[in-house]
Amino acid sequence: MSSSTPHTTPSPLTRASIEAAHELIKPYIHRTPVITNTTLTNLASTPQTIEALKGTPWEGQEPAKPKICLFFKCENFQRIGAFKVRGAFHAVLRLVEEKGIEEVKKKGVVTHSSGNHAQALALAARTLHIPAHIVMPSISTPSKIAGTRSHAPTIHFSGSTSQEREAVVASVIADTGATLIPPYDHPNIILGQGTLGLEVQAEVAELIAGQDGELDALMVPCGGGGLLSGTSIALHDSHTLVFGAEPSFQGADDATRGVAAGQRIETVKSLTIADGLRTPLGKHTWPIISNAEYVAGMYSVTEQNIKDAMKLVLERMKVFVEPSAVVGLAVCLYNEEFRRRVEREAGEEGWDVGVVFSGGNTTVEAITKIFADVDGGKAERAEGVVGKDGGRVAENVAG
Amino acid sequence: MSSSTPHTTPSPLTRASIEAAHELIKPYIHRTPVITNTTLTNLASTPQTIEALKGTPWEGQEPAKPKICLFFKCENFQRIGAFKVRGAFHAVLRLVEEKGIEEVKKKGVVTHSSGNHAQALALAARTLHIPAHIVMPSISTPSKIAGTRSHAPTIHFSGSTSQEREAVVASVIADTGATLIPPYDHPNIILGQGTLGLEVQAEVAELIAGQDGELDALMVPCGGGGLLSGTSIALHDSHTLVFGAEPSFQGADDATRGVAAGQRIETVKSLTIADGLRTPLGKHTWPIISNAEYVAGMYSVTEQNIKDAMKLVLERMKVFVEPSAVVGLAVCLYNEEFRRRVEREAGEEGWDVGVVFSGGNTTVEAITKIFADVDGGKAERAEGVVGKDGGRVAENVAG
Repeated sequence: MSSSTPHTTPSPLTRASIEAAHELIKPYIHRTPVITNTTLTNLASTPQTIEALKGTPWEGQEPAKPKICLFFKCENFQRIGAFKVRGAFHAVLRLVEEKGIEEVKKKGVVTHSSGNHAQALALAARTLHIPAHIVMPSISTPSKIAGTRSHAPTIHFSGSTSQEREAVVASVIADTGATLIPPYDHPNIILGQGTLGLEVQAEVAELIAGQDGELDALMVPCGGGGLLSGTSIALHDSHTLVFGAEPSFQGADDATRGVAAGQRIETVKSLTIADGLRTPLGKHTWPIISNAEYVAGMYSVTEQNIKDAMKLVLERMKVFVEPSAVVGLAVCLYNEEFRRRVEREAGEEGWDVGVVFSGGNTTVEAITKIFADVDGGKAERAEGVVGKDGGRVAENVAG
Repeated sequence: MSSSTPHTTPSPLTRASIEAAHELIKPYIHRTPVITNTTLTNLASTPQTIEALKGTPWEGQEPAKPKICLFFKCENFQRIGAFKVRGAFHAVLRLVEEKGIEEVKKKGVVTHSSGNHAQALALAARTLHIPAHIVMPSISTPSKIAGTRSHAPTIHFSGSTSQEREAVVASVIADTGATLIPPYDHPNIILGQGTLGLEVQAEVAELIAGQDGELDALMVPCGGGGLLSGTSIALHDSHTLVFGAEPSFQGADDATRGVAAGQRIETVKSLTIADGLRTPLGKHTWPIISNAEYVAGMYSVTEQNIKDAMKLVLERMKVFVEPSAVVGLAVCLYNEEFRRRVEREAGEEGWDVGVVFSGGNTTVEAITKIFADVDGGKAERAEGVVGKDGGRVAENVAG
């Protein structure tokens, strides 16, 4: 494919496209490790207590007895500390193929994000000597601004509503001709994130070569759904079932609810501590995630479940993760609906379950804030007042 | 060597003994990974600012310009979360060789510790089906008691002074005939910990095979000195210089001061946040550590240095460590005396420096407490009042 031939159609959403994406981005990303942990596998394979189910939807019911062997794909060790570099590098490299490097160098790329996607795009652009414009709310935390700035993009500050952000993006595009690289709702982003599915499949096959060598399930955190839809495409024709995991706090379980209702939920307004998962599904991710042939089920967990899982990962695995990264583990440990499914479908043999640790970009200060409150309630309430964005609840609307 | 032949002399303190120790314990321990990190290597190779040196002994002086490439030996991923299993398994396996398994099974082993050595000995004993008696101060934190209990030893509670603990140990020995396995001051413990030196040497050689393949320096945390003396014996005839790192808070830099004065300091009474390093050197570790042919230098760091290093390891490396684990990194980043030495001795070429992350046994609660105070001062003062041991400053006396 000549780099000067413009594409008229995006790559089809197939495993072959993801394999091609992987070849393209491999020189720029880490092949992150898959690790196992006996303590957590034992915990996942131990029934919850009657006591632990009090106050949950499963209060008074018999705890499930699943057998779950866990494999953790550690994207917290990825470049910029999160899987987002996969999609960002893929989208930018495809853009260069389509328009030619000179054109892209002249006009640049732009996105609106205050999180991992901003850092990922800035890194991809800098690596390829392309100008990057990042639109961030001016109320973003200093650590996020500093993190993004370290990759030397041009930062444009905006208000925090989606209208305000989009207005600044539009003005950057008008001024520079930059191409918008959205955080998740684009085929090339979805295909890039899907490369994680290929890697975890190959790595687990190496680890359990003596056995069948295939994961029974992969549990993927779901915000906008780029990673979930991408990995579900990658593993569509394999033995592995792909599941999505969400926080339930303040309606952040939009995909779970949307799939149940058969209708995409377009707006989410949640201050869940899993701050990478506050966004709703997009127009491109929805049809894949709502298709049971691709995503076998959506499950959600409480803020306390996320905190408990995070504490286990830090203290027992000695691995540093952000809250969004542990929602998949939290489902495996605490969601009785999922645990019953494993018991029912896998029986004595159990399931080998891959869990994606999506990123590790948090701070000691943020963790201190999350865990400062022993009963787990006040921190959430404080969060609801103070907010991650310095006092305001930014509404997240699908792109 | 027949398991029924009693030893009359302990193994000599040589590399050959450490190689034999490694063969013996290998089936029971993890070969922990050595990892690198570009951000931290860049930081170590960047001069500190004039501003950062204010209030330090180097205020107003020209910041050093060392070139330091860091290699981290991650014993936080070791079994029980710390290097201590090396010495514990070695001491117990040698005891079994010396007295025979039946005799040791009958009488058991005993130690006084509330920390990583207690867990390590309990695990080694359980693995070999030997009774273990652990004497812990009754004021130990619940998480430490629970951690030790999980390896199913018999726990005996005592008062918190060394006299009170030793009285309980003496009564356990009188009752059971158990053999005391001390936490650091014993040749077989020293040799067991020394196995880390062999591993890091081999692993770094694999990583930088294209270059000279040898570390220029290894930076080792020093409390009682078992790990430091052991690794210095292991690397004595190699190109690698071995250095010790200590906290300076409330006189915890007893080895640094003792070596300077040519006289072992026998008592330490410090509540440094590096709670694994509150002990003084022992009778067996002192002659090795004070011998410049073995340990090329001792360096110490402040509580703030330790916190800053810990924050970097958590947030940038995404690796969970206990405060004691990062004192070596803190020396590389913040101790101008060491940094000048690297600049002076290594010049433009710089040094490849191995840094031992000795363990990862801390809790989210402990980290929250350490970092809750933004200016770094109040937490230390609060620590000095409340204490890790629930309100009392336990005096630590060399064994």
